Amino acid sequence: MKFSELLHQLERQDEHQHSLLADPHCDPDLLSLAAIDQAQPGALSYIEGRKFASQIQQTKASAVILPVDAQLQQQASQRKIAWISSAEPKLLFAKVVRHFYQPFRPTPGIHPTAIIDSTATLGQNVSIGAYCVIQANVRLGDEVCLHPQVVIYPDVTIGQRSLLHSGAVIHERTQIGADCVIHSGAVIGAEGFGFVPSATGWVKLEQSGVAVLEDRVEVGCNATVDRPAVGETRIGAGSKLDNLVHVGHNCQISPNCILAAQVGMAGGAKTGSWVILGGQTGVANQTEIGDRVQAGAKAGLHGKIAPGSIMMGNPASPYRTFLKASAIYNRLPDMQQSLRQLQQRMDELQQQIQALEASHSTDETYEI
Amino acid sequence: MKFSELLHQLERQDEHQHSLLADPHCDPDLLSLAAIDQAQPGALSYIEGRKFASQIQQTKASAVILPVDAQLQQQASQRKIAWISSAEPKLLFAKVVRHFYQPFRPTPGIHPTAIIDSTATLGQNVSIGAYCVIQANVRLGDEVCLHPQVVIYPDVTIGQRSLLHSGAVIHERTQIGADCVIHSGAVIGAEGFGFVPSATGWVKLEQSGVAVLEDRVEVGCNATVDRPAVGETRIGAGSKLDNLVHVGHNCQISPNCILAAQVGMAGGAKTGSWVILGGQTGVANQTEIGDRVQAGAKAGLHGKIAPGSIMMGNPASPYRTFLKASAIYNRLPDMQQSLRQLQQRMDELQQQIQALEASHSTDETYEI
Amino acid sequence: MKFSELLHQLERQDEHQHSLLADPHCDPDLLSLAAIDQAQPGALSYIEGRKFASQIQQTKASAVILPVDAQLQQQASQRKIAWISSAEPKLLFAKVVRHFYQPFRPTPGIHPTAIIDSTATLGQNVSIGAYCVIQANVRLGDEVCLHPQVVIYPDVTIGQRSLLHSGAVIHERTQIGADCVIHSGAVIGAEGFGFVPSATGWVKLEQSGVAVLEDRVEVGCNATVDRPAVGETRIGAGSKLDNLVHVGHNCQISPNCILAAQVGMAGGAKTGSWVILGGQTGVANQTEIGDRVQAGAKAGLHGKIAPGSIMMGNPASPYRTFLKASAIYNRLPDMQQSLRQLQQRMDELQQQIQALEASHSTDETYEI
Repeated sequence: MKFSELLHQLERQDEHQHSLLADPHCDPDLLSLAAIDQAQPGALSYIEGRKFASQIQQTKASAVILPVDAQLQQQASQRKIAWISSAEPKLLFAKVVRHFYQPFRPTPGIHPTAIIDSTATLGQNVSIGAYCVIQANVRLGDEVCLHPQVVIYPDVTIGQRSLLHSGAVIHERTQIGADCVIHSGAVIGAEGFGFVPSATGWVKLEQSGVAVLEDRVEVGCNATVDRPAVGETRIGAGSKLDNLVHVGHNCQISPNCILAAQVGMAGGAKTGSWVILGGQTGVANQTEIGDRVQAGAKAGLHGKIAPGSIMMGNPASPYRTFLKASAIYNRLPDMQQSLRQLQQRMDELQQQIQALEASHSTDETYEI
Repeated sequence: MKFSELLHQLERQDEHQHSLLADPHCDPDLLSLAAIDQAQPGALSYIEGRKFASQIQQTKASAVILPVDAQLQQQASQRKIAWISSAEPKLLFAKVVRHFYQPFRPTPGIHPTAIIDSTATLGQNVSIGAYCVIQANVRLGDEVCLHPQVVIYPDVTIGQRSLLHSGAVIHERTQIGADCVIHSGAVIGAEGFGFVPSATGWVKLEQSGVAVLEDRVEVGCNATVDRPAVGETRIGAGSKLDNLVHVGHNCQISPNCILAAQVGMAGGAKTGSWVILGGQTGVANQTEIGDRVQAGAKAGLHGKIAPGSIMMGNPASPYRTFLKASAIYNRLPDMQQSLRQLQQRMDELQQQIQALEASHSTDETYEI
Repeated sequence: MKFSELLHQLERQDEHQHSLLADPHCDPDLLSLAAIDQAQPGALSYIEGRKFASQIQQTKASAVILPVDAQLQQQASQRKIAWISSAEPKLLFAKVVRHFYQPFRPTPGIHPTAIIDSTATLGQNVSIGAYCVIQANVRLGDEVCLHPQVVIYPDVTIGQRSLLHSGAVIHERTQIGADCVIHSGAVIGAEGFGFVPSATGWVKLEQSGVAVLEDRVEVGCNATVDRPAVGETRIGAGSKLDNLVHVGHNCQISPNCILAAQVGMAGGAKTGSWVILGGQTGVANQTEIGDRVQAGAKAGLHGKIAPGSIMMGNPASPYRTFLKASAIYNRLPDMQQSLRQLQQRMDELQQQIQALEASHSTDETYEI
């Protein structure tokens, strides 16, 4: 695709609030997409943030999406690299990618080996792959796409255009909204981990509740979202869960949250919206996380976390506190030694003072 | 179901050691189960612990299971909420749930698409779902239930009434007891992670051992229990593993343990019975954990842990020690500053003392 | 197998650089393999390291592989235990295991229920199990083995002799080398977690890149290796990933690395070769880990880690620093108390000195 043709297509998209600023002088053929430091001639790339800005001097890319930065624009032009500027270069890149690459999608239709219960309801243009199993009273919306070997237990509802990858298992009564993506091996709506101790062992608390995924939710590979004993486990619209995330029974995740890989949320934890949890973060049961809270990787959250907090460590603290404390942590041996030296000096000083006092009182005796 | 009918059924169950105390005045129709703070009219709920006790004043539940607490009973009666009291309200609720809710179970029978090796032995009334694959010399006990798409490698034994969910994979020679539940995506008895370094790379140590799950074990979604090079990996009767748990080769877990989500046990670690490991806890290889040890979420256990210990942190300490230390952790910058101030004051004091000593010796000179 | 026969076979293998030293006096029948502390008569076992050396006095094993240690050899001979000595006893044991145990492998051939796209290319002697799904343009090398229920998306290449276990899912364009093992439930080449924030929600950055596994890579059960937006995610030859490991988009893992269970590597992280990451270690995005770095379990790595470092803690420090600091951590309350006592003593000393100064100046007044 010619650079000019790409520009033309982008400008036709209504969604652009910022008019695009672009270099009118070069019009390379664009053959591929690449990271700025790996780009070859013919590639389109992007630069975001200072870390990669210097790459403009070395990259072999033929075109690049830049932030709104006159210096970078000039440098690109000098090196005859075609450029487009955007206030949000990575967001524009995400839109551009779609002009070059469409993810694999099976053709619509129902594979003859798919086993579909007679009570299931299928929307129009659904795609159901080989060896899928769809059980009683399942309802699939229009254009739902199931890759091969997806199992859907009874009474599940899946909204239009949602996509389920091979190996996903959706348990009974789960409600999945529209435009969701369930990745390979993810398990949604399985029994929450509910056991009550008794003298003879752990007694199962049956999990009669339901898991609900609102629209545009993504659940990563081999992630798990459990259903509760009563009520709902709910994932808000537009929230994205990475691989191997665990969401326990009765958790309530508000819209537009990001849970990075291997995050675990224990039973009944809640998040506000636009929360971002770093990889391997753990959330204790009943934790209440406010809107727009961010947690660094491996944080351990519990209690109530005020909206907008940036938390780190385990147990988690506001990040400034954590960074100061963790910077000192390695100096603990020095601190301990300093303490001991102080105690020793203190003992010595005390002896000196006692000597002075003694000698002083002797003086006084003399003076009488 | 009428409240009185439920009471009648509960009293017929032999298992109740405590006679039930109940309110004879109300007899609502019970339509659903709910958490105390989400209950609607017609719902049965329960209260356990002080945290939720005040809910008795607001709940819309029509009936509630209470602890043995005269005040709560009186408050319920005043609000015309039917109640039952039990020394273990949640345990009673677990029993009550089954009168309202039965989890989905496929009807017994063998789906025509199931592939069953001719050398496999099946008990009576087994249920084998679509696209299951059962290989040579597998033995399934009576009433074993396999949801669709379970794969069982050769020489596996599964005890009566055990239930395997879709996507579970059971590897060769694994022994699963009676009344076990293997959740979706769990992998039991796969090769342990055994590699020996050599000059040319890592050499695989073949895993000739076996994974054994005793009776009433549950293994959560996408959890993994590996078999060892020699000997056994063993999970004791009644132990429950949550989602995404990893149990390495040669681990020995005693009966009635609870491993919360994302716990990892490295090779050869052992637990006593009734051990509870919080979410994301890690157990180093060869760790020996005593009976009834509890570990807080994200703990890192190693060495020998005395029976009954409650451990937190990484490396883990007894929880009182950990809580005290972690409470101070954030004050490290203050402590460091205090130390510096003390050193400064110490220097000043030392100078003052030297001045005094000098002046004193001058005095003495005068006195001669 | 007779002990002498085993020796004979081992000596025929070219690979032995060290000639084997063995006890010529005993020649037991070897019936099984066992850990040294669990061995029964007829078992072959091995001893490596001091921890297990004392077992030579108690083991019931009939034969044992020893380090090159005259005392252990003598003790074994005295107890009539046949022995072989090797500079690397565990490595020799790994070779010996194969004379007693071969892991289960399906017979070559294509199961009639396997669905193979007409554009796929299969090598010689492949084994494709029941209900496998192989999509367009997939190429499988000679002797590739797929256990039942493996799904391969389009355009995947798998090198000769690679083995995929039931439940593995390989996504589009993934390149897998020769002699790899993909364990049950592992997902390779699925979409990386790429979302760009916008005012209306998270916008997906399509993942047009590819996941590449070089030769002899192993990926554990339910582990995930994502493909990137552009470029490659690459796992170097001979690297081994344990269960439930997550490797994010664009990670570059060099040859011969070991990632223990539940390790997570965020996007764009890189390792040198022969790196060993302990269980539950987390690696922040863009981290650069040098050759032969080792990280203890639960470490949190970020930034640049110098080659050969041994790291612990989160954020990770060199292990000596970490061990010293963590040893003091629990004494923080004592340190805080010592600080307060010092401050108090300091106040008292100051008062004493002021008193001395006052009295001294009074003396001086007198003296005038």
